[in-house]
Amino acid sequence: MPIIRIALDAMGGDHGPSVVVPAALRMVEAHHDLELILVGNPDKIKKYFKHSHQHPRIMIKPAYEEVGMDESFTTALRSKKDSSMRVAINLVKDNQAQACVSAGNTGALVAIARFVLKTLPGIDKPAICGLIPTRTQKLVRFLDLGAVVDSKPEHLLQFALMATILSTAIDKIENPSVGLLNIGHEDIKGNELVKQTAALLQSNAALNYAGYIEADEIYSGKTDIVVCDGFVGNVALKASEGIAKLILYYIKRAFNKNFMTKLIGLIALPILKSLHKEIDPSRYNGASLIGLMGIVVKSHGGANIIGFSRAIEEAMLQVNSNILEEITSI
Amino acid sequence: MPIIRIALDAMGGDHGPSVVVPAALRMVEAHHDLELILVGNPDKIKKYFKHSHQHPRIMIKPAYEEVGMDESFTTALRSKKDSSMRVAINLVKDNQAQACVSAGNTGALVAIARFVLKTLPGIDKPAICGLIPTRTQKLVRFLDLGAVVDSKPEHLLQFALMATILSTAIDKIENPSVGLLNIGHEDIKGNELVKQTAALLQSNAALNYAGYIEADEIYSGKTDIVVCDGFVGNVALKASEGIAKLILYYIKRAFNKNFMTKLIGLIALPILKSLHKEIDPSRYNGASLIGLMGIVVKSHGGANIIGFSRAIEEAMLQVNSNILEEITSI
Repeated sequence: MPIIRIALDAMGGDHGPSVVVPAALRMVEAHHDLELILVGNPDKIKKYFKHSHQHPRIMIKPAYEEVGMDESFTTALRSKKDSSMRVAINLVKDNQAQACVSAGNTGALVAIARFVLKTLPGIDKPAICGLIPTRTQKLVRFLDLGAVVDSKPEHLLQFALMATILSTAIDKIENPSVGLLNIGHEDIKGNELVKQTAALLQSNAALNYAGYIEADEIYSGKTDIVVCDGFVGNVALKASEGIAKLILYYIKRAFNKNFMTKLIGLIALPILKSLHKEIDPSRYNGASLIGLMGIVVKSHGGANIIGFSRAIEEAMLQVNSNILEEITSI
Repeated sequence: MPIIRIALDAMGGDHGPSVVVPAALRMVEAHHDLELILVGNPDKIKKYFKHSHQHPRIMIKPAYEEVGMDESFTTALRSKKDSSMRVAINLVKDNQAQACVSAGNTGALVAIARFVLKTLPGIDKPAICGLIPTRTQKLVRFLDLGAVVDSKPEHLLQFALMATILSTAIDKIENPSVGLLNIGHEDIKGNELVKQTAALLQSNAALNYAGYIEADEIYSGKTDIVVCDGFVGNVALKASEGIAKLILYYIKRAFNKNFMTKLIGLIALPILKSLHKEIDPSRYNGASLIGLMGIVVKSHGGANIIGFSRAIEEAMLQVNSNILEEITSI
C-alpha cells in the first residue's frame, strides 16, 4: 500500500492544535497508509499528544508564525513567510506532502496557495468547492464559495469542468449533472454573467448541463453540482449558516421557556441530539481549493475533531484519485 | 378617520381567493377605516364569502385573466391586459386605490408595476424590500430581493435611501443603520460593485452607514437595513428558504423514526408548534416594491390568511406614512 502524506496547518482555525492534533491521531489510527506532518509551534502542538509525545506516522514541522482568522490576506501573504499555513503549502509545492489541510483564514489560504502553487495549465483561477447536505444521503458540490469575485463566463465553465471531475472521481457519480445558479428558470432571467455562462455550459460536450437552478433547490439535490460566482456562492453559504443558527436558537429557546418545556426537552433530548448529528456540518466538512498545482483542502474554522478528520479524509480521497492529472487534461 | 382603500389581486398566489377573501374579511373587521377592492373573477371570489355574499367595505372589481405563477413576465406584461394583477395596479394608477397587494408571480408584478406606475422622480429602478427575522423582535429591511440585477452603485445608494425612509416611517427606527452586503469586513474584500457602492454610501450624509455586513449577520440584526444587488439578495433569501425547509424536514423525520419518537413528538407538540409560529414566515410577510409612483406590496406566493393579512397591514402602514412624498424628496 503506497503511503499518503498530508501536511496539516496545526495552528489554523478557531481551535488550532486542540482540534488538529486529536484529529490527526484519530486518522493515523484509522488509516495505516497515512502519514501526517503537523506544521506549527512544536511546544503548542506537543501539549495535545497526551501520554506519548510521539506517533511513528506523525511528524512535526516547526513554523513559528500564525495567520490570524481576521488578518488581511495581503499581510498574511507578504509578511508571514514562516506561518504554519504557508509552510504547510510549501511542503506540497516541494513534494514533501501530497496535500495540505488548513482550518485557517480562507482569504489568506486562497492567496498563499495560489501564489505558492500556481494554477494548473488551462485554469485561470482556483475555486473553493464545498459539500452541501440534501434530503438524501447525497452531498452536492457547490462552487465557487468565495475565491473568485467578478468572475467571467469562462471561469464558471472551468469550475463546472473541475467539479465534474471531482464528483466523478471522489463521489463516484457517473456523468454528474451541473446546475447554474440563477434567480429563475426562464432563459430571460438572470444577470449578464449567468446568461453568457449558460451558453458556454450548454455547448460543452464534457458537461451534463442541467440548466438553471434556484438557490433553494441547491438543498433539494436537484443537480450533483451547482456553479456560481464566488461572491454569490459565499453569500448563499453564509446566509444559510445564519438562518440555520437562528432556527437552532429558536428551538433551544422554545424548550427552555419554563419548567414544563425543559422537562419535555429532557425527554426529547435523544431525538434532538440525533437531529443535531444530522445537520452537523462536520459530516460534510472539507471544501476543496481546486485548480491549483497541488491539493489543498479548507476545513471550516470552527470544525471539531470529527469535522477536521473529515477534511483530512477529503484530502486523502483526492490524493488517491489523480484529480490534478485529470484537471490538466480538460 | 380618513378611509384607506387598497386593491387586492384576488387571483394571485398559490391559493388565490381562498386565502385573499378570508384575509380581506379579517382585515376590514379589524380596521374600520379600511376599504378593500378585490380584483378578479367575481364568481370565484364570491364562493369564499360564505353566508353573505357582500361586505359594505369590500368591493369586487371584475378581471377575467390570471397571471400564472410560472408565466414569463413578458407574456404577462404584453398579452394579459385584463389580468387581476394588472387591473389591481391600474386602480392605484387611477387613484381608485392608495395601494395594491398581490401574492402573484414576482417577475410579472415588478414588470407590470414598473410599466404602469413608473418610477418616482430621482429613482432609476424599483427594488423589492423584504422583512427578515432576527434573534430579537426587530425585523431587518433587506433589499433588493430580485427586481434589479446587474445593478450599479447609484442604484444601491437609492435603495439605501429608500429603505432608510421605510425603516424610519414604518418601523419607527430613528436613524436606522445601513449595512452593505459583502463577503468579508475588510476594505479589500468584495467585488467592484460593492467597493464602489461603499464609497457612495459612506459619503452620503442622509445615511447612517455601518459598513460591510456578511450574509450570516443579516439574521443577527447587526444593522436595521441590508443593501445588495437583486441577484445576490434573491439568492440569499432562497438559499435561506432552502436550508430552513431542510432543517424542518430533518426535525419531522427525527420525530417520525419509530413508535417511541412519535410518542415523544406528541408530548413535544405544543413546543414544536410554538417554534413553528416563531419561524412562521407569515409573521413578516409583505415585501415592498419601492421606488414607484404608487404603493405595491408583494405577499409570498404561499402565504396563508394570517400572512396575507400581514401584507395588507404593511400596505396600510405605508399609505399612512407618506412614503412616496418622502422618497420623492430624497
